[in-house]
Amino acid sequence: MGGSLALALNGHCREIIGVDQDVAVISLALEKNIIHSGGTDPAVLIHKADIVILATPICSILRLLDQLPSWHPGNAVIIDLGSTKAEIMSRMSMLPDRLQPVGGHPLCGKEKSSLQHADANLFVGTPFLLTSQESTTTHAREIAEGLAMTIGAIPIWVDIQQHDATLALTSHLPYLIANALAAIIPEDSRKFMGPGLRSTTRLAGSSLSMMMDIIRTNRQNILTGIHQYRERLGEMESYLEAGDYEQLEKLLQAGHDRYSNSID
Amino acid sequence: MGGSLALALNGHCREIIGVDQDVAVISLALEKNIIHSGGTDPAVLIHKADIVILATPICSILRLLDQLPSWHPGNAVIIDLGSTKAEIMSRMSMLPDRLQPVGGHPLCGKEKSSLQHADANLFVGTPFLLTSQESTTTHAREIAEGLAMTIGAIPIWVDIQQHDATLALTSHLPYLIANALAAIIPEDSRKFMGPGLRSTTRLAGSSLSMMMDIIRTNRQNILTGIHQYRERLGEMESYLEAGDYEQLEKLLQAGHDRYSNSID
Repeated sequence: MGGSLALALNGHCREIIGVDQDVAVISLALEKNIIHSGGTDPAVLIHKADIVILATPICSILRLLDQLPSWHPGNAVIIDLGSTKAEIMSRMSMLPDRLQPVGGHPLCGKEKSSLQHADANLFVGTPFLLTSQESTTTHAREIAEGLAMTIGAIPIWVDIQQHDATLALTSHLPYLIANALAAIIPEDSRKFMGPGLRSTTRLAGSSLSMMMDIIRTNRQNILTGIHQYRERLGEMESYLEAGDYEQLEKLLQAGHDRYSNSID
Repeated sequence: MGGSLALALNGHCREIIGVDQDVAVISLALEKNIIHSGGTDPAVLIHKADIVILATPICSILRLLDQLPSWHPGNAVIIDLGSTKAEIMSRMSMLPDRLQPVGGHPLCGKEKSSLQHADANLFVGTPFLLTSQESTTTHAREIAEGLAMTIGAIPIWVDIQQHDATLALTSHLPYLIANALAAIIPEDSRKFMGPGLRSTTRLAGSSLSMMMDIIRTNRQNILTGIHQYRERLGEMESYLEAGDYEQLEKLLQAGHDRYSNSID
Protein backbone atom coordinates (compact mmCIF):
# COMPACT_ATOMS: atom_id res chain seq x y z
CA MET A 1 0.00 0.00 0.00
CA GLY A 2 2.83 2.38 0.88
CA GLY A 3 4.55 1.60 -2.42
CA SER A 4 1.38 2.16 -4.43
CA LEU A 5 0.77 5.45 -2.62
CA ALA A 6 4.35 6.64 -3.29
CA LEU A 7 3.94 5.78 -6.98
CA ALA A 8 0.60 7.60 -7.14
CA LEU A 9 2.07 10.68 -5.43
CA ASN A 10 5.11 10.79 -7.71
CA GLY A 11 5.40 14.22 -9.30
CA HIS A 12 2.94 15.76 -6.85
CA CYS A 13 5.34 16.18 -3.88
CA ARG A 14 8.56 18.10 -3.33
CA GLU A 15 10.23 14.86 -2.25
CA ILE A 16 9.12 11.34 -1.35
CA ILE A 17 11.20 9.76 1.41
CA GLY A 18 10.75 6.04 2.06
CA VAL A 19 11.35 4.35 5.41
CA ASP A 20 11.30 0.58 5.87
CA GLN A 21 12.91 -1.81 8.36
CA ASP A 22 14.14 -3.88 5.43
CA VAL A 23 16.97 -2.26 3.50
CA ALA A 24 16.23 -4.48 0.47
CA VAL A 25 12.77 -2.90 0.18
CA ILE A 26 14.35 0.57 0.19
CA SER A 27 16.90 -0.47 -2.47
CA LEU A 28 14.14 -1.81 -4.69
CA ALA A 29 12.02 1.32 -4.18
CA LEU A 30 15.00 3.50 -5.14
CA GLU A 31 15.82 1.35 -8.19
CA LYS A 32 12.22 1.55 -9.39
CA ASN A 33 12.13 5.34 -8.78
CA ILE A 34 9.22 4.86 -6.39
CA ILE A 35 10.95 7.09 -3.80
CA HIS A 36 13.51 9.91 -4.08
CA SER A 37 15.49 8.93 -1.00
CA GLY A 38 15.10 6.47 1.84
CA GLY A 39 16.53 4.32 4.56
CA THR A 40 15.76 2.28 7.66
CA ASP A 41 16.09 4.94 10.38
CA PRO A 42 13.09 7.27 10.73
CA ALA A 43 14.98 9.49 13.20
CA VAL A 44 17.38 10.74 10.52
CA LEU A 45 14.86 10.74 7.63
CA ILE A 46 11.52 12.24 8.61
CA HIS A 47 12.42 15.27 10.74
CA LYS A 48 11.72 17.72 7.91
CA ALA A 49 8.67 15.98 6.40
CA ASP A 50 5.48 18.04 5.92
CA ILE A 51 3.35 14.90 5.80
CA VAL A 52 4.18 11.61 7.51
CA ILE A 53 2.22 8.62 6.19
CA LEU A 54 2.16 5.49 8.34
CA ALA A 55 1.59 2.58 5.93
CA THR A 56 2.30 -0.43 8.13
CA PRO A 57 0.21 -3.05 9.95
CA ILE A 58 -1.88 -1.55 12.77
CA CYS A 59 0.20 -2.69 15.76
CA SER A 60 3.24 -1.18 14.13
CA ILE A 61 1.33 2.08 13.49
CA LEU A 62 0.55 2.22 17.22
CA ARG A 63 4.24 1.80 18.13
CA LEU A 64 5.35 4.36 15.53
CA LEU A 65 2.89 6.92 16.91
CA ASP A 66 4.53 6.62 20.34
CA GLN A 67 7.97 7.37 18.90
CA LEU A 68 7.00 9.97 16.32
CA PRO A 69 7.36 13.07 18.56
CA SER A 70 11.02 12.16 19.25
CA TRP A 71 11.73 11.76 15.53
CA HIS A 72 10.03 14.91 14.26
CA PRO A 73 10.72 18.17 16.15
CA GLY A 74 8.56 20.43 13.96
CA ASN A 75 5.08 20.68 12.44
CA ALA A 76 3.63 17.91 10.27
CA VAL A 77 0.38 16.25 9.28
CA ILE A 78 0.33 12.60 10.37
CA ILE A 79 -1.85 10.23 8.31
CA ASP A 80 -2.09 6.48 8.91
CA LEU A 81 -3.55 3.90 6.50
CA GLY A 82 -4.79 1.36 9.06
CA SER A 83 -7.99 -0.64 8.50
CA THR A 84 -9.38 -0.02 12.00
CA LYS A 85 -9.56 3.48 13.41
CA ALA A 86 -10.66 3.59 17.09
CA GLU A 87 -7.38 2.45 18.68
CA ILE A 88 -5.24 4.40 16.24
CA MET A 89 -7.20 7.65 16.68
CA SER A 90 -7.06 7.21 20.43
CA ARG A 91 -3.27 6.84 20.27
CA MET A 92 -3.08 9.82 17.87
CA SER A 93 -4.83 11.99 20.45
CA MET A 94 -1.65 11.75 22.54
CA LEU A 95 0.48 13.44 19.87
CA PRO A 96 1.66 17.00 20.60
CA ASP A 97 -0.36 19.76 18.85
CA ARG A 98 2.39 20.36 16.28
CA LEU A 99 1.79 16.84 14.87
CA GLN A 100 -1.67 17.04 13.31
CA PRO A 101 -3.46 13.65 13.17
CA VAL A 102 -5.78 12.37 10.42
CA GLY A 103 -6.93 8.75 10.13
CA GLY A 104 -6.97 7.34 6.59
CA HIS A 105 -8.34 4.14 5.13
CA PRO A 106 -8.30 3.68 1.35
CA LEU A 107 -10.71 0.86 0.43
CA CYS A 108 -8.57 -0.81 -2.19
CA GLY A 109 -6.68 -3.60 -0.46
CA LYS A 110 -5.15 -6.34 -2.55
CA GLU A 111 -4.54 -9.82 -1.21
CA LYS A 112 -1.06 -9.59 -2.76
CA SER A 113 0.77 -7.03 -0.65
CA SER A 114 4.43 -6.23 -1.32
CA LEU A 115 6.41 -3.63 -3.20
CA GLN A 116 6.50 -5.96 -6.23
CA HIS A 117 2.75 -5.42 -6.63
CA ALA A 118 2.82 -1.62 -6.18
CA ASP A 119 0.35 0.04 -8.56
CA ALA A 120 0.01 3.80 -9.15
CA ASN A 121 -3.64 3.35 -10.16
CA LEU A 122 -4.63 1.31 -7.11
CA PHE A 123 -6.60 4.20 -5.59
CA VAL A 124 -8.37 5.52 -8.68
CA GLY A 125 -12.11 5.82 -8.08
CA THR A 126 -12.03 4.14 -4.66
CA PRO A 127 -13.33 5.63 -1.40
CA PHE A 128 -10.58 7.02 0.84
CA LEU A 129 -12.16 7.09 4.28
CA LEU A 130 -10.89 9.82 6.60
CA THR A 131 -11.34 10.28 10.34
CA SER A 132 -10.53 13.30 12.46
CA GLN A 133 -10.38 14.33 16.10
CA GLU A 134 -11.35 17.47 17.94
CA SER A 135 -7.74 18.56 17.69
CA THR A 136 -7.52 18.04 13.91
CA THR A 137 -7.12 21.46 12.23
CA THR A 138 -8.67 22.63 8.97
CA HIS A 139 -5.17 22.64 7.48
CA ALA A 140 -4.69 18.93 8.27
CA ARG A 141 -8.13 18.09 6.87
CA GLU A 142 -7.35 19.94 3.64
CA ILE A 143 -3.97 18.21 3.31
CA ALA A 144 -5.60 14.77 3.75
CA GLU A 145 -8.43 15.53 1.28
CA GLY A 146 -5.91 16.90 -1.20
CA LEU A 147 -3.76 13.79 -0.90
CA ALA A 148 -6.76 11.52 -1.52
CA MET A 149 -7.87 13.53 -4.57
CA THR A 150 -4.33 13.72 -5.96
CA ILE A 151 -4.17 9.93 -6.20
CA GLY A 152 -7.61 9.74 -7.82
CA ALA A 153 -9.48 8.52 -4.73
CA ILE A 154 -12.70 9.92 -3.26
CA PRO A 155 -12.16 11.42 0.22
CA ILE A 156 -15.04 10.67 2.61
CA TRP A 157 -15.07 11.84 6.24
CA VAL A 158 -16.61 9.26 8.55
CA ASP A 159 -17.28 8.83 12.24
CA ILE A 160 -14.63 6.70 13.98
CA GLN A 161 -17.05 4.34 15.74
CA GLN A 162 -19.25 3.95 12.67
CA HIS A 163 -16.14 3.20 10.62
CA ASP A 164 -15.06 0.30 12.82
CA ALA A 165 -18.58 -1.09 13.29
CA THR A 166 -19.37 -1.05 9.56
CA LEU A 167 -15.96 -2.27 8.37
CA ALA A 168 -16.32 -5.22 10.77
CA LEU A 169 -19.25 -6.30 8.54
CA THR A 170 -18.03 -5.16 5.12
CA SER A 171 -14.38 -6.22 5.43
CA HIS A 172 -13.21 -8.02 8.57
CA LEU A 173 -16.06 -10.55 8.78
CA PRO A 174 -15.76 -11.32 5.03
CA TYR A 175 -12.14 -12.30 5.71
CA LEU A 176 -13.19 -14.79 8.41
CA ILE A 177 -15.99 -16.09 6.16
CA ALA A 178 -13.57 -16.69 3.29
CA ASN A 179 -11.01 -18.31 5.59
CA ALA A 180 -13.56 -20.67 7.16
CA LEU A 181 -14.81 -21.74 3.74
CA ALA A 182 -11.29 -22.38 2.44
CA ALA A 183 -10.60 -24.44 5.57
CA ILE A 184 -13.39 -26.96 4.92
CA ILE A 185 -12.77 -27.48 1.17
CA PRO A 186 -11.35 -31.00 0.61
CA GLU A 187 -7.69 -30.90 -0.42
CA ASP A 188 -8.23 -32.79 -3.66
CA SER A 189 -11.21 -30.88 -5.00
CA ARG A 190 -9.51 -28.56 -7.48
CA LYS A 191 -11.28 -30.23 -10.40
CA PHE A 192 -14.62 -29.40 -8.77
CA MET A 193 -13.93 -25.68 -8.50
CA GLY A 194 -15.42 -22.93 -10.58
CA PRO A 195 -15.08 -19.13 -10.44
CA GLY A 196 -17.66 -18.90 -7.64
CA LEU A 197 -15.45 -20.58 -5.05
CA ARG A 198 -12.44 -18.55 -6.08
CA SER A 199 -14.41 -15.34 -5.68
CA THR A 200 -15.95 -16.30 -2.32
CA THR A 201 -12.61 -17.42 -0.82
CA ARG A 202 -10.36 -14.75 -2.40
CA LEU A 203 -9.90 -12.79 0.83
CA ALA A 204 -8.47 -15.92 2.53
CA GLY A 205 -5.24 -15.08 0.69
CA SER A 206 -4.82 -11.81 2.67
CA SER A 207 -1.80 -11.42 4.93
CA LEU A 208 -2.67 -13.21 8.19
CA SER A 209 -0.44 -11.03 10.37
CA MET A 210 -2.13 -7.93 8.96
CA MET A 211 -5.56 -9.46 9.61
CA MET A 212 -4.63 -10.45 13.18
CA ASP A 213 -3.87 -6.78 13.94
CA ILE A 214 -7.24 -5.81 12.51
CA ILE A 215 -8.98 -8.49 14.56
CA ARG A 216 -7.17 -7.49 17.77
CA THR A 217 -8.16 -3.84 17.36
CA ASN A 218 -11.78 -4.41 16.31
CA ARG A 219 -12.65 -7.49 18.39
CA GLN A 220 -16.02 -6.42 19.77
CA ASN A 221 -17.47 -5.26 16.44
CA ILE A 222 -16.27 -8.43 14.69
CA LEU A 223 -17.76 -10.56 17.46
CA THR A 224 -21.12 -8.84 16.98
CA GLY A 225 -20.88 -9.47 13.23
CA ILE A 226 -19.86 -13.12 13.42
CA HIS A 227 -22.65 -13.79 15.91
CA GLN A 228 -25.27 -12.17 13.67
CA TYR A 229 -23.87 -14.00 10.64
CA ARG A 230 -23.92 -17.42 12.31
CA GLU A 231 -27.53 -16.80 13.35
CA ARG A 232 -28.47 -16.07 9.74
CA LEU A 233 -26.77 -19.26 8.55
CA GLY A 234 -28.47 -21.09 11.42
CA GLU A 235 -31.87 -19.99 10.13
CA MET A 236 -30.97 -21.34 6.70
CA GLU A 237 -29.82 -24.60 8.26
CA SER A 238 -33.07 -24.98 10.24
CA TYR A 239 -35.31 -24.43 7.22
CA LEU A 240 -33.17 -26.81 5.17
CA GLU A 241 -33.23 -29.41 7.95
CA ALA A 242 -37.03 -29.15 8.08
CA GLY A 243 -37.29 -29.21 4.27
CA ASP A 244 -39.20 -25.92 4.53
CA TYR A 245 -38.24 -24.57 1.11
CA GLU A 246 -40.88 -21.86 1.19
CA GLN A 247 -39.39 -20.16 4.27
CA LEU A 248 -35.86 -20.80 3.01
CA GLU A 249 -36.65 -19.09 -0.28
CA LYS A 250 -38.10 -16.06 1.55
CA LEU A 251 -34.93 -15.80 3.61
CA LEU A 252 -32.71 -16.11 0.54
CA GLN A 253 -34.85 -13.60 -1.36
CA ALA A 254 -34.10 -11.00 1.33
CA GLY A 255 -30.36 -11.64 0.96
CA HIS A 256 -30.66 -11.48 -2.82
CA ASP A 257 -32.53 -8.15 -2.62
CA ARG A 258 -30.03 -6.61 -0.20
CA TYR A 259 -27.24 -7.67 -2.56
CA SER A 260 -28.96 -6.10 -5.59
CA ASN A 261 -29.87 -2.87 -3.80
CA SER A 262 -26.83 -2.24 -1.63
CA ILE A 263 -23.81 -4.03 -3.07
CA ASP A 264 -24.05 -4.91 -6.78
CA MET B 1 -25.68 -21.33 -20.48
CA GLY B 2 -27.63 -22.84 -23.39
CA GLY B 3 -27.03 -19.72 -25.46
CA SER B 4 -23.31 -19.71 -24.73
CA LEU B 5 -23.10 -23.41 -25.60
CA ALA B 6 -24.94 -22.87 -28.91
CA LEU B 7 -22.56 -20.02 -29.77
CA ALA B 8 -19.52 -22.16 -28.86
CA LEU B 9 -20.82 -25.07 -30.96
CA ASN B 10 -21.54 -22.87 -33.98
CA GLY B 11 -19.83 -24.30 -37.05
CA HIS B 12 -19.17 -27.64 -35.36
CA CYS B 13 -22.65 -29.15 -35.79
CA ARG B 14 -24.80 -30.00 -38.80
CA GLU B 15 -27.58 -27.87 -37.31
CA ILE B 16 -28.32 -26.18 -33.99
CA ILE B 17 -32.00 -26.19 -33.07
CA GLY B 18 -33.14 -24.05 -30.15
CA VAL B 19 -36.15 -24.77 -27.97
CA ASP B 20 -37.45 -22.35 -25.34
CA GLN B 21 -40.83 -21.73 -23.73
CA ASP B 22 -40.44 -18.04 -24.52
CA VAL B 23 -40.84 -17.22 -28.20
CA ALA B 24 -38.98 -13.90 -27.69
CA VAL B 25 -35.87 -15.82 -26.62
CA ILE B 26 -36.06 -17.90 -29.81
CA SER B 27 -36.53 -14.78 -31.97
CA LEU B 28 -33.49 -13.17 -30.38
CA ALA B 29 -31.40 -16.34 -30.79
CA LEU B 30 -32.37 -16.49 -34.48
CA GLU B 31 -31.63 -12.79 -35.01
CA LYS B 32 -28.20 -13.16 -33.40
CA ASN B 33 -27.48 -16.31 -35.46
CA ILE B 34 -27.01 -18.27 -32.23
CA ILE B 35 -29.27 -21.05 -33.58
CA HIS B 36 -30.18 -22.21 -37.10
CA SER B 37 -33.83 -22.90 -36.33
CA GLY B 38 -36.01 -23.03 -33.27
CA GLY B 39 -39.38 -22.78 -31.59
CA THR B 40 -41.33 -23.47 -28.44
CA ASP B 41 -42.56 -27.03 -29.09
CA PRO B 42 -39.95 -29.76 -28.51
CA ALA B 43 -42.29 -32.42 -29.98
CA VAL B 44 -41.95 -30.99 -33.49
CA LEU B 45 -38.33 -29.86 -33.20
CA ILE B 46 -36.12 -32.46 -31.60
CA HIS B 47 -37.24 -35.77 -33.12
CA LYS B 48 -34.27 -35.94 -35.49
CA ALA B 49 -31.58 -34.57 -33.13
CA ASP B 50 -28.41 -36.65 -32.65
CA ILE B 51 -27.67 -34.87 -29.38
CA VAL B 52 -30.26 -33.34 -27.06
CA ILE B 53 -28.83 -30.87 -24.54
CA LEU B 54 -31.01 -29.97 -21.58
CA ALA B 55 -29.89 -26.51 -20.47
CA THR B 56 -32.63 -25.52 -18.03
CA PRO B 57 -33.00 -25.34 -14.24
CA ILE B 58 -32.83 -28.78 -12.58
CA CYS B 59 -36.54 -29.27 -11.82
CA SER B 60 -37.31 -28.50 -15.44
CA ILE B 61 -34.62 -30.99 -16.58
CA LEU B 62 -36.36 -33.65 -14.48
CA ARG B 63 -39.72 -32.90 -16.14
CA LEU B 64 -38.19 -32.82 -19.63
CA LEU B 65 -36.57 -36.22 -19.06
CA ASP B 66 -40.00 -37.71 -18.36
CA GLN B 67 -41.37 -36.40 -21.65
CA LEU B 68 -38.31 -36.94 -23.82
CA PRO B 69 -39.14 -40.50 -25.01
CA SER B 70 -42.45 -39.27 -26.44
CA TRP B 71 -40.75 -36.43 -28.34
CA HIS B 72 -37.83 -38.38 -29.78
CA PRO B 73 -38.60 -41.74 -31.43
CA GLY B 74 -35.02 -42.60 -32.46
CA ASN B 75 -31.49 -42.78 -31.10
CA ALA B 76 -29.85 -39.81 -29.43
CA VAL B 77 -27.34 -38.87 -26.78
CA ILE B 78 -28.99 -36.90 -23.96
CA ILE B 79 -26.79 -34.47 -22.01
CA ASP B 80 -28.00 -32.21 -19.25
CA LEU B 81 -26.15 -29.22 -17.79
CA GLY B 82 -27.57 -29.35 -14.25
CA SER B 83 -25.48 -28.41 -11.22
CA THR B 84 -26.51 -31.45 -9.16
CA LYS B 85 -26.29 -34.93 -10.60
CA ALA B 86 -27.79 -37.62 -8.31
CA GLU B 87 -31.48 -36.91 -8.96
CA ILE B 88 -30.95 -36.19 -12.64
CA MET B 89 -28.91 -39.37 -13.24
CA SER B 90 -31.50 -41.39 -11.36
CA ARG B 91 -34.25 -39.97 -13.61
CA MET B 92 -32.04 -40.55 -16.67
CA SER B 93 -31.81 -44.23 -15.78
CA MET B 94 -35.50 -44.53 -16.69
CA LEU B 95 -34.89 -43.47 -20.30
CA PRO B 96 -35.22 -46.21 -22.95
CA ASP B 97 -31.87 -47.65 -24.19
CA ARG B 98 -32.08 -45.73 -27.49
CA LEU B 99 -31.73 -42.44 -25.53
CA GLN B 100 -28.19 -42.53 -24.13
CA PRO B 101 -27.74 -40.47 -20.96
CA VAL B 102 -24.68 -38.46 -19.93
CA GLY B 103 -24.65 -35.98 -17.07
CA GLY B 104 -22.78 -32.74 -17.74
CA HIS B 105 -21.76 -29.86 -15.52
CA PRO B 106 -19.53 -27.13 -16.96
CA LEU B 107 -17.99 -25.15 -14.07
CA CYS B 108 -18.35 -21.72 -15.55
CA GLY B 109 -21.56 -20.25 -14.19
CA LYS B 110 -22.09 -16.52 -14.39
CA GLU B 111 -24.34 -14.69 -11.98
CA LYS B 112 -25.83 -12.91 -15.01
CA SER B 113 -27.76 -15.58 -16.84
CA SER B 114 -29.77 -14.75 -19.95
CA LEU B 115 -29.31 -14.91 -23.69
CA GLN B 116 -28.11 -11.28 -23.62
CA HIS B 117 -25.00 -12.45 -21.77
CA ALA B 118 -24.29 -15.46 -24.04
CA ASP B 119 -20.54 -15.84 -24.58
CA ALA B 120 -18.89 -18.30 -27.01
CA ASN B 121 -15.72 -18.33 -24.88
CA LEU B 122 -17.50 -19.06 -21.60
CA PHE B 123 -16.23 -22.65 -21.48
CA VAL B 124 -12.62 -22.14 -22.58
CA GLY B 125 -10.22 -23.77 -20.14
CA THR B 126 -12.90 -24.68 -17.59
CA PRO B 127 -13.60 -28.19 -16.22
CA PHE B 128 -16.62 -29.86 -17.85
CA LEU B 129 -17.64 -32.51 -15.32
CA LEU B 130 -19.27 -35.60 -16.81
CA THR B 131 -21.18 -38.41 -15.13
CA SER B 132 -22.26 -41.72 -16.59
CA GLN B 133 -24.39 -44.70 -15.69
CA GLU B 134 -23.98 -48.42 -16.22
CA SER B 135 -26.15 -48.09 -19.30
CA THR B 136 -24.07 -45.26 -20.83
CA THR B 137 -22.35 -46.57 -23.98
CA THR B 138 -18.83 -45.81 -25.19
CA HIS B 139 -20.43 -43.90 -28.10
CA ALA B 140 -22.30 -41.59 -25.73
CA ARG B 141 -19.17 -41.05 -23.63
CA GLU B 142 -17.18 -40.13 -26.73
CA ILE B 143 -19.87 -37.71 -27.93
CA ALA B 144 -19.93 -35.95 -24.55
CA GLU B 145 -16.13 -35.71 -24.35
CA GLY B 146 -15.98 -34.46 -27.93
CA LEU B 147 -18.59 -31.81 -27.19
CA ALA B 148 -16.66 -30.58 -24.15
CA MET B 149 -13.40 -30.42 -26.09
CA THR B 150 -15.02 -28.70 -29.08
CA ILE B 151 -16.01 -25.75 -26.90
CA GLY B 152 -12.55 -25.55 -25.33
CA ALA B 153 -13.48 -27.11 -21.98
CA ILE B 154 -11.68 -29.95 -20.17
CA PRO B 155 -13.87 -33.09 -19.88
CA ILE B 156 -13.49 -34.84 -16.49
CA TRP B 157 -15.45 -37.99 -15.60
CA VAL B 158 -16.52 -37.98 -11.96
CA ASP B 159 -18.49 -40.20 -9.61
CA ILE B 160 -22.08 -39.00 -9.16
CA GLN B 161 -22.10 -39.08 -5.34
CA GLN B 162 -18.69 -37.48 -5.07
CA HIS B 163 -19.86 -34.77 -7.50
CA ASP B 164 -22.82 -33.77 -5.38
CA ALA B 165 -20.95 -34.03 -2.06
CA THR B 166 -18.02 -31.92 -3.28
CA LEU B 167 -20.08 -29.36 -5.19
CA ALA B 168 -22.14 -28.83 -2.04
CA LEU B 169 -18.92 -27.44 -0.50
CA THR B 170 -17.34 -25.79 -3.53
CA SER B 171 -20.44 -24.21 -5.06
CA HIS B 172 -23.77 -24.55 -3.24
CA LEU B 173 -22.56 -23.63 0.26
CA PRO B 174 -20.62 -20.63 -1.14
CA TYR B 175 -23.94 -19.34 -2.51
CA LEU B 176 -25.56 -19.54 0.94
CA ILE B 177 -22.48 -17.95 2.52
CA ALA B 178 -22.58 -15.03 0.07
CA ASN B 179 -26.33 -14.61 0.51
CA ALA B 180 -26.13 -14.59 4.33
CA LEU B 181 -23.34 -12.00 4.24
CA ALA B 182 -25.25 -9.74 1.84
CA ALA B 183 -28.29 -10.03 4.10
CA ILE B 184 -26.56 -8.56 7.17
CA ILE B 185 -24.78 -5.66 5.43
CA PRO B 186 -26.40 -2.37 6.50
CA GLU B 187 -28.37 -0.76 3.65
CA ASP B 188 -26.46 2.52 3.75
CA SER B 189 -22.92 1.16 3.83
CA ARG B 190 -21.96 1.51 0.18
CA LYS B 191 -19.26 4.07 1.02
CA PHE B 192 -17.66 1.52 3.36
CA MET B 193 -17.31 -1.16 0.69
CA GLY B 194 -14.15 -2.28 -1.04
CA PRO B 195 -13.47 -5.01 -3.60
CA GLY B 196 -13.30 -7.66 -0.84
CA LEU B 197 -16.99 -7.47 -0.03
CA ARG B 198 -17.98 -7.46 -3.69
CA SER B 199 -15.92 -10.58 -4.28
CA THR B 200 -17.20 -12.43 -1.19
CA THR B 201 -20.86 -11.64 -1.93
CA ARG B 202 -20.75 -11.97 -5.74
CA LEU B 203 -22.60 -15.31 -5.81
CA ALA B 204 -25.56 -13.71 -3.99
CA GLY B 205 -26.51 -12.28 -7.39
CA SER B 206 -27.16 -15.78 -8.81
CA SER B 207 -30.68 -16.66 -9.96
CA LEU B 208 -32.59 -17.64 -6.83
CA SER B 209 -34.98 -20.00 -8.62
CA MET B 210 -32.02 -21.82 -10.15
CA MET B 211 -30.37 -22.05 -6.73
CA MET B 212 -33.58 -23.33 -5.09
CA ASP B 213 -33.59 -26.26 -7.53
CA ILE B 214 -29.98 -27.00 -6.62
CA ILE B 215 -30.75 -26.82 -2.91
CA ARG B 216 -33.82 -29.07 -3.25
CA THR B 217 -31.84 -31.74 -5.11
CA ASN B 218 -28.71 -31.66 -2.92
CA ARG B 219 -30.25 -30.98 0.48
CA GLN B 220 -28.40 -33.55 2.57
CA ASN B 221 -24.92 -32.68 1.27
CA ILE B 222 -25.56 -28.96 1.70
CA LEU B 223 -26.81 -29.58 5.25
CA THR B 224 -23.61 -31.44 6.08
CA GLY B 225 -21.58 -28.56 4.63
CA ILE B 226 -23.46 -25.75 6.36
CA HIS B 227 -23.19 -27.60 9.68
CA GLN B 228 -19.44 -28.07 9.30
CA TYR B 229 -19.04 -24.45 8.22
CA ARG B 230 -20.99 -23.03 11.16
CA GLU B 231 -18.88 -25.13 13.52
CA ARG B 232 -15.71 -23.65 12.03
CA LEU B 233 -17.07 -20.12 12.42
CA GLY B 234 -18.15 -21.07 15.95
CA GLU B 235 -14.56 -21.99 16.83
CA MET B 236 -13.42 -18.60 15.55
CA GLU B 237 -16.14 -16.90 17.59
CA SER B 238 -15.13 -18.76 20.77
CA TYR B 239 -11.46 -17.87 20.50
CA LEU B 240 -12.36 -14.27 19.71
CA GLU B 241 -14.79 -14.14 22.64
CA ALA B 242 -12.04 -15.48 24.93
CA GLY B 243 -9.48 -13.10 23.42
CA ASP B 244 -7.34 -16.17 22.68
CA TYR B 245 -5.52 -14.73 19.69
CA GLU B 246 -2.91 -17.47 19.68
CA GLN B 247 -5.47 -20.23 19.05
CA LEU B 248 -7.40 -18.01 16.64
CA GLU B 249 -4.27 -17.39 14.59
CA LYS B 250 -3.53 -21.14 14.43
CA LEU B 251 -7.07 -21.77 13.18
CA LEU B 252 -6.84 -18.99 10.59
CA GLN B 253 -3.38 -20.19 9.51
CA ALA B 254 -4.91 -23.57 8.61
CA GLY B 255 -7.56 -21.86 6.46
CA HIS B 256 -4.92 -19.66 4.86
CA ASP B 257 -2.77 -22.72 4.04
CA ARG B 258 -5.69 -24.68 2.56
CA TYR B 259 -6.50 -21.66 0.40
CA SER B 260 -2.91 -21.35 -0.85
CA ASN B 261 -2.50 -25.08 -1.50
CA SER B 262 -5.89 -26.06 -2.86
CA ILE B 263 -7.67 -23.01 -4.28
CA ASP B 264 -5.36 -20.11 -5.24
